[in-house]
Amino acid sequence: MRDTYHEDLDALTARLVEMTRLARHAIARATTALLDADLTAAQEVISEDEALNRLDEEIGKSAFDLMARQQPVAQDLRTIITSLHMAGDLERMGDHAVHIAKIARRRHPDSAIPAELRSIVLEMGHQAELLVIKAGEVVSNRDAETALELDEDDDRMDRLRRKLLKRILDPGWSHGVEATMDVTLAGRFYERFGDHAVHVADNLVYMVTGEKRKDYEQEA
Amino acid sequence: MRDTYHEDLDALTARLVEMTRLARHAIARATTALLDADLTAAQEVISEDEALNRLDEEIGKSAFDLMARQQPVAQDLRTIITSLHMAGDLERMGDHAVHIAKIARRRHPDSAIPAELRSIVLEMGHQAELLVIKAGEVVSNRDAETALELDEDDDRMDRLRRKLLKRILDPGWSHGVEATMDVTLAGRFYERFGDHAVHVADNLVYMVTGEKRKDYEQEA
Repeated sequence: MRDTYHEDLDALTARLVEMTRLARHAIARATTALLDADLTAAQEVISEDEALNRLDEEIGKSAFDLMARQQPVAQDLRTIITSLHMAGDLERMGDHAVHIAKIARRRHPDSAIPAELRSIVLEMGHQAELLVIKAGEVVSNRDAETALELDEDDDRMDRLRRKLLKRILDPGWSHGVEATMDVTLAGRFYERFGDHAVHVADNLVYMVTGEKRKDYEQEA
Repeated sequence: MRDTYHEDLDALTARLVEMTRLARHAIARATTALLDADLTAAQEVISEDEALNRLDEEIGKSAFDLMARQQPVAQDLRTIITSLHMAGDLERMGDHAVHIAKIARRRHPDSAIPAELRSIVLEMGHQAELLVIKAGEVVSNRDAETALELDEDDDRMDRLRRKLLKRILDPGWSHGVEATMDVTLAGRFYERFGDHAVHVADNLVYMVTGEKRKDYEQEA
């Protein structure tokens, strides 16, 4: 009995890691869709989001079963509860990739991103990928030390977003209302994607140490 | 022992209802901040968000304790898990009110909303209040029937947002880049606020019936 139980707990982690893999793929394709006005990539991101939603649901069901059948306490209970939170964050990361893909689809065959902003958006896409890959490693290895790095990695995302907004607000900005809206929202979606990756890492810290990241950081 | 246990379960609900009350107040004040360029209101929304965060944390701790000390199954376990989800949604509703308040603060002493959009934004604010008040009633009364209405109430919010975006994209739109950004983001924050209220209602349906809203709706 205990064996199946621990296998089920491991399966939770495996599903979470799979979600980070899917979320990384989604944001990478969404960035391609956005930068290259690639309609195929956009459609892919939109339709493949279903897989992330399904995994989130599976984790929810599995967590519920584990709690109902067993009487998890302390560490195990924390693992189950934080897994639920992490699944929720990863599911929303998929949603943000979809939002970006939809911007690309709406402007197709034009590109939603003016030429002079392409490099910033590309950097935001890369940073988003880095954040979610790192979140996956951290979850997979139960590595609370590396988890602490994500907050700083995310500062870079926030700096990129501020840079993006500064360009839009520059008196030299000559693009129309649609471009202003698209860039504003895309910037926000990348930022939110990053925030959720940080939440995943924070939850991992709590899962492993039983402490909130900020308290754990002060001691570490 | 069982008495304390059921008191603790009731206390979860009471905290959730209190969160809907705070979230309603936050979004109402945020709308005032936005429409009247009211800096005091904006600051209030920002500083009072702490109360929502604290309640979310308290619900998390209480849920964890309940699961660790008792062995809740079926209905009770569902109540605890869905309470966690609802608290998360309500906490994020507070965040969206804060985002709106920060737009107001950033543009102060100017108003972020051009005169001809004031009525739409006011309607969005009112609809947001209605949604969260209804979510509170539904949670308080464990009323799965009324919970089904929120999805439709939220359609109205989506229509308002589309109306807002249409105005921005109208060739007659004469406002600058800042106004375009502010209105785009404010529209999104109200829409997300509404989405989270629908999630709260959906979770209530699941809490009470053990079925997802869509399945329950087909039978009802």
